[in-house]
Amino acid sequence: MRIDVSLVPGEILAKDASRSVVVVIDVLRATSTIVTALASGCEEVIPAESIEEAIALANGYKRSDYVLGGERRGVPVEGFDLGNSPQEYDGPRVAGKKIIIATTNGTNAITEYGVARDIFVACFLNADAVMEACRAYKDSDFVLVCSGQDGRFCMEDTLCAGLLATRLAEETGAEMSDAARAASLLYQQRKESIEDELLRCDHGAYLVGIGYEQDVRYCSRQSVLSVVPKVYDRRVIRKAHGGKEE
Amino acid sequence: MRIDVSLVPGEILAKDASRSVVVVIDVLRATSTIVTALASGCEEVIPAESIEEAIALANGYKRSDYVLGGERRGVPVEGFDLGNSPQEYDGPRVAGKKIIIATTNGTNAITEYGVARDIFVACFLNADAVMEACRAYKDSDFVLVCSGQDGRFCMEDTLCAGLLATRLAEETGAEMSDAARAASLLYQQRKESIEDELLRCDHGAYLVGIGYEQDVRYCSRQSVLSVVPKVYDRRVIRKAHGGKEE
Repeated sequence: MRIDVSLVPGEILAKDASRSVVVVIDVLRATSTIVTALASGCEEVIPAESIEEAIALANGYKRSDYVLGGERRGVPVEGFDLGNSPQEYDGPRVAGKKIIIATTNGTNAITEYGVARDIFVACFLNADAVMEACRAYKDSDFVLVCSGQDGRFCMEDTLCAGLLATRLAEETGAEMSDAARAASLLYQQRKESIEDELLRCDHGAYLVGIGYEQDVRYCSRQSVLSVVPKVYDRRVIRKAHGGKEE
Repeated sequence: MRIDVSLVPGEILAKDASRSVVVVIDVLRATSTIVTALASGCEEVIPAESIEEAIALANGYKRSDYVLGGERRGVPVEGFDLGNSPQEYDGPRVAGKKIIIATTNGTNAITEYGVARDIFVACFLNADAVMEACRAYKDSDFVLVCSGQDGRFCMEDTLCAGLLATRLAEETGAEMSDAARAASLLYQQRKESIEDELLRCDHGAYLVGIGYEQDVRYCSRQSVLSVVPKVYDRRVIRKAHGGKEE
């Protein structure tokens, strides 16, 4: 068993993760939003790689069955129902609906690793629950994928990957790659200050600057939601057999 | 002023570093070898991107004027004069000669950033001297380039980048990107154990396994050489005006 971390988009190719359990992380904010939406009772999340694709996908459903969400450069897309603020995706707005969502970084990572053994979606909000799901794989390698920011390394995803890598290694005795060990060391060094790190990191500071400080603080909360989103046939559902919540 | 770090090959493109001072790092072992060779009196180092290119370049010189060096997967290339063990590149073998060298990761990074404002070559061995050279740029951004290992993140280059980023930020007050801050935090956490980190990291452990433990220990020595290699017209020379050592 080995734990690896893709610290920068494209660092670990999908073909090299085909036998691994993949965990996709985009703390600010795509995976925090997806986790919140599924915890609020939305039926499934359909990630789109572009705004155009999101609109095309939406055309396949009855208007009352879906919510269209997305952002570019942190701000909502004109004409869409919701932006990418996790707390917008609460019960009444999303319960029982499909969410079609286009975001800058996270959705690309979710759709990219389709050949993996299984793909989960993680953020700080559901860290414990993801750990619980990973614990079931006794013999698997793990690849934790940081979505990053505009093709670059980002601190917030690395700290979340570090949390998961640290716990997985403790529980399973799995070896860590250099990248996994770096993420783990960073998490261990800053684990008492996750909220501060999220507020000061490049994208966190940008979001604070355009008025989303409450989002950043919300996304730093740890293990407050128990849902484990799983990618299945390019859709994100609650971890399940047959699509039902466990 | 801003300090950024390319943690993974290709993370920061050459075109985005064109106004920056670039520092290329490949601790195990290309830049440690180049620094050692120039400190031992070699005239210049000509990096080649492949073994074939190294041989083609050598054909342009008198046999007594150059030394041909290189490695693939850590081992010397058949028919070459030297491998990539820094300590092979000592005085009698290299003094007054050109070294044409093909290595797996480091030489590619050196040749890639040709458009940068200036390009220096660093490792732990010459860290203080590189800092001294960087101090002369009062108004520049810095990009520290980790050569990585086979396209991946590696711990040893990141720790060296972290050392340089930490000192540069302390002395200049420059801002750090997320990647620079991550490298700096890792260095600060592990700075008392650099040799241990180099022995245990993915490529360090590989080199130990094939018999190069002494190389790894040598490459962990900090600021023992005062040479600052500078890339000029695709050649690496001692930092100089007109090619002479300062």
